[in-house]
Amino acid sequence: MNPDFLLFANRLADISGERIRRYFRKAHGLQLKADLSPVTLADREAESLLREAILKRYLDHGILGEEHGAHKPDAEYVWVLDPVDGTRAFIAGVATFGTLIALAHKGEPVLGLIDQPITRERWTGGKNVPSRLNGEFIATRRCESLNEALLSTTSPDLFAPAEQEAFRRVQAKVKHTLYGKDCYAYAMLASGHIDLVIEAGLKPHDFCALAPVIANAGGVMTGWDGAPLTLHSDGRVIAAATPALHREAMEMLK
Amino acid sequence: MNPDFLLFANRLADISGERIRRYFRKAHGLQLKADLSPVTLADREAESLLREAILKRYLDHGILGEEHGAHKPDAEYVWVLDPVDGTRAFIAGVATFGTLIALAHKGEPVLGLIDQPITRERWTGGKNVPSRLNGEFIATRRCESLNEALLSTTSPDLFAPAEQEAFRRVQAKVKHTLYGKDCYAYAMLASGHIDLVIEAGLKPHDFCALAPVIANAGGVMTGWDGAPLTLHSDGRVIAAATPALHREAMEMLK
Repeated sequence: MNPDFLLFANRLADISGERIRRYFRKAHGLQLKADLSPVTLADREAESLLREAILKRYLDHGILGEEHGAHKPDAEYVWVLDPVDGTRAFIAGVATFGTLIALAHKGEPVLGLIDQPITRERWTGGKNVPSRLNGEFIATRRCESLNEALLSTTSPDLFAPAEQEAFRRVQAKVKHTLYGKDCYAYAMLASGHIDLVIEAGLKPHDFCALAPVIANAGGVMTGWDGAPLTLHSDGRVIAAATPALHREAMEMLK
Repeated sequence: MNPDFLLFANRLADISGERIRRYFRKAHGLQLKADLSPVTLADREAESLLREAILKRYLDHGILGEEHGAHKPDAEYVWVLDPVDGTRAFIAGVATFGTLIALAHKGEPVLGLIDQPITRERWTGGKNVPSRLNGEFIATRRCESLNEALLSTTSPDLFAPAEQEAFRRVQAKVKHTLYGKDCYAYAMLASGHIDLVIEAGLKPHDFCALAPVIANAGGVMTGWDGAPLTLHSDGRVIAAATPALHREAMEMLK
């Protein structure tokens, strides 16, 4: 992979972080109004800035963004953007939301970046790019079995009934479950603190940036069916610290 | 209230924070072992230091701690301690856990302190002590109705079945629900970002520090029955940004 892509992704996160920090915990009393809420402004304005920077630098690349839709989605390289993943955490003033920036090559995410602009933590990783947190190499924990695992999911309300049941089967086996960590849970998995994250209903802009960071920290992130994640995956994801744990969890989800 | 109590509570949080920071995200791979985990060490060692400081300064005060039990629990003044509230978040490397320090007078919490030692955020409030975050005055948001409210609860798994049902009735009415924020959710309520927190199964060391911070920021925190929280409350709590919201939520829980 062109090493410029990682440098450029970092530059993008600098741009979005600067804009997002302006709106965090601001405009007391406005947060829940639909059109002018700080989180909506942060999300839209940051995405516009990122798109502008990408178009200026890589004219032939595509862009998929949560807020402003698709531009050349069938290009060889597509940038996948979500400036504020975890909007409820943002609204609530809790710094577990994050900015997700991915680069997909022929539909497959090959570079991922997770940025927490308030705590100034940034995870990166990709094909032939070992995963790092703020420049330091990271690795997943060597947890090989569900009964030792710390499981995380953002909200039990995001599962359809059959998915909920499958999730409960895994949950019944693990050591601890925690909720509500958004993309930060995947970052903590890559850093070796959480062992398993299971979610459903995600969009490409929610998961494309996560998979490369986890895979290049020693973990595994796929669909519930074990297939590699692509721009066309169904949004049911499983991220695990080790291949053995991934296998065991996937069996239970079936 | 003796103004020394607030100064002393701040001193206690300085002591616990210093110790807790030593263990956060440390000892990769050990976190889930029962007896020597970093979170257990952080919790026990910090509580020992706090007890020592209290005994040295206020010989006639009682102490209730999560880790080391009760000392003179019937004293006029009792310090109520939980160095690491949110142990799962701590284990997972997420800074939504907190240190809770309360002073109860004749069983009623009159001073509360919530400290986040990683982000260095500290909330204080008490009888005749306006609530503050790092010295700045704070106030709850003026949310008066469930359909405008942002609701938080740490885990749906903490409710007994009948409680779960009552919680779901409230949840069906609110604008958004978020999970997994531990004591940080109450701090964010006091700061005007979250409107409602409903939990059950809490112990005095979980809730005594929260109620004074919320009450003196303009909110209301009681049991599900509306009774003021005391050292003898049943652990079902409701914290709301305004009296009107508190009333509406309490009705739905019945």
